[in-house]
Amino acid sequence: MNYNIAIIPGDGIGPEVTAQAQKALDAIADMFDHHFTYTPALMGACAIDATGNPLPEETIDICEAADAILFGAIGHPKYDNDPNAKVRPELGLLRLRKSLGLFCNIRPVKAYDQLIERSPLKKDRIVGTDISIYRELTGGIYFGEKHLSDDGQVASDGCSYSVEEISRIAHLAFKEALSRKRKLTLVDKANVLETSRLWRKTVTEIAKEYPDVELDFLFVDNAAMQMILNPKQFDVILTENLFGDIISDEASVIGGSIGLLASASIGTDNALFEPIHGSFPQATGKDIANPLASILSAALLLRHLNLHKEAALVEKAVEKSLELGFTTEDLNAENPFGTSKVGDFIADFI
Amino acid sequence: MNYNIAIIPGDGIGPEVTAQAQKALDAIADMFDHHFTYTPALMGACAIDATGNPLPEETIDICEAADAILFGAIGHPKYDNDPNAKVRPELGLLRLRKSLGLFCNIRPVKAYDQLIERSPLKKDRIVGTDISIYRELTGGIYFGEKHLSDDGQVASDGCSYSVEEISRIAHLAFKEALSRKRKLTLVDKANVLETSRLWRKTVTEIAKEYPDVELDFLFVDNAAMQMILNPKQFDVILTENLFGDIISDEASVIGGSIGLLASASIGTDNALFEPIHGSFPQATGKDIANPLASILSAALLLRHLNLHKEAALVEKAVEKSLELGFTTEDLNAENPFGTSKVGDFIADFI
Ligand SMILES: CC(C)[C@H](C(=O)O)[C@@H](O)C(=O)O
Ligand SMILES: CC(C)[C@H](C(=O)O)[C@@H](O)C(=O)O
Repeated sequence: MNYNIAIIPGDGIGPEVTAQAQKALDAIADMFDHHFTYTPALMGACAIDATGNPLPEETIDICEAADAILFGAIGHPKYDNDPNAKVRPELGLLRLRKSLGLFCNIRPVKAYDQLIERSPLKKDRIVGTDISIYRELTGGIYFGEKHLSDDGQVASDGCSYSVEEISRIAHLAFKEALSRKRKLTLVDKANVLETSRLWRKTVTEIAKEYPDVELDFLFVDNAAMQMILNPKQFDVILTENLFGDIISDEASVIGGSIGLLASASIGTDNALFEPIHGSFPQATGKDIANPLASILSAALLLRHLNLHKEAALVEKAVEKSLELGFTTEDLNAENPFGTSKVGDFIADFI
Repeated sequence: MNYNIAIIPGDGIGPEVTAQAQKALDAIADMFDHHFTYTPALMGACAIDATGNPLPEETIDICEAADAILFGAIGHPKYDNDPNAKVRPELGLLRLRKSLGLFCNIRPVKAYDQLIERSPLKKDRIVGTDISIYRELTGGIYFGEKHLSDDGQVASDGCSYSVEEISRIAHLAFKEALSRKRKLTLVDKANVLETSRLWRKTVTEIAKEYPDVELDFLFVDNAAMQMILNPKQFDVILTENLFGDIISDEASVIGGSIGLLASASIGTDNALFEPIHGSFPQATGKDIANPLASILSAALLLRHLNLHKEAALVEKAVEKSLELGFTTEDLNAENPFGTSKVGDFIADFI
């Protein structure tokens, strides 16, 4: 079979880790006689530098034509602390999510046995943690109207949600819960926000269609506590864009390494896969970045293409590299392997 | 000296714990020949039940006339999951903050030696943690315009900040940093939000007046990670209302017990002191609620009245109760003391 894959390496360590994921995909292609056509595309700081636009039209076209998208990372410090910057790299990613309608971001959080000792949390609190976070990705305050008064004295951001936006991701989350432990936790701030109250109302309504799923609610401040106090209590978490951003990053530390967390952003006609870690500018070009999250993103991409056997093989190769300590310095201080060497190992093992 | 203290016991365990704080204040009054006049006032679910209004006018009057306010907790589950409820208990607290102009919420986060083993985090990550969180309390999305479309399909919340709102709390936070380790971290989401960019710009500007304070920036998602990975890196954290709500609750688990965290909400003419924990409905009336955070809130109140010797004595009594295990069941599973007994012990020790 032939598959078109858009590759957006992005900024910082994005290109290095994405290259390793491509090696894994190549190995899979060889083995199973698939053909992957990769089309590279620009987004982020590198796109601003090259074209002035964090998301060139061409990138959208390439993504729309692709069967799936593999993305690296975005962001560069030279844009972060310049409040007057006219364009920001992150805008590229936000616009891509919006243009492709990638409304559902899924982030699995698991405690890997091999990494559990590295977690900042005590072992007994986290053994067995297995959470699937469903974060709404194309609404809320991320995409509300932004305004700065002419005299620069007052800034504002609008946050809004419609029943339709809430419903489509809620159904996906309930279905996910059905295939897991049948528990869904809605994280909101319904004691303060009107949008949260609409979430709570809509999700409560939809819950009636899933009588086998137990639904509960947590205010986001309490959720931020519970995630640390007792992460095992969670099965599927459903939440809006900004709360999802914060809670899922917080949850990413539980497992002992953010270098292993992949995520999927799903729309009606498209899907994008990326590691959770950022562009990590300090590590760029040093061959020290951990490529495993990017490789696991490629595994998620394979699953999306219904290539489950292939995906399982990639995941097994990652576990093997953990087992044998064939890992980068963040996981293996004594005897670290380079980014590229780890990629080679995974491809060989496949 | 005579001091007028407004007492707002509030909901759930609020009344029980506030009563213990009052015992401590009485003991101080006896010892130092002060006179505290307490005026009780209603707010929250109990105020709705009694008057239909979560913040009766009278409560505002009492608070305005007081030298300081001691508050318990707010919220009742019967209002939480009813998206159609017309009034909510929390509205009382939000309105009080706004009417009294309590714009600066200060939450200290410390790892107490006696409790460190109880923390979900590993000891070596947290020993020495000492953070002071400055959360803006009367602006942002909490107080923006809320709207629900007539057909109930679209909800919205506005978020806005002015340079003035940002500046007044920023100055307080920089001053706090000067008296501590001289490091200030602004937590925002400047890569997405216009309001965050105004925060970053304004705080960067103000930093020039405090050349001895090192200023750095963290995106809120990264801050949620760093708080767990390495809380010792923080000294003073400055942030807007909603991020402060989430990050400070997350931080509250570090020390091993939220039952020991007090907070102050400061305005130009008024100040309110309260435990960080909520109304904990399940524990209400059972004489099991931990009163120490409320007692420590009373200590903060004494400091606000410039009664530093007195405050130190209350704090010492709390440490003594920890040392001797004279504590409630959350801290002392084997041989727990009741809420009221712990209050008596603290008062006696004073
Ligand atoms: C880069 C940034 C705009 C983005 C977000 O906030 O959504 C990132 O933090 C993420 O979670 O993918
Ligand atoms: C009760 C609620 C409205 C309040 C808030 O969100 O500010 C509480 O969580 C707090 O932090 O004091």
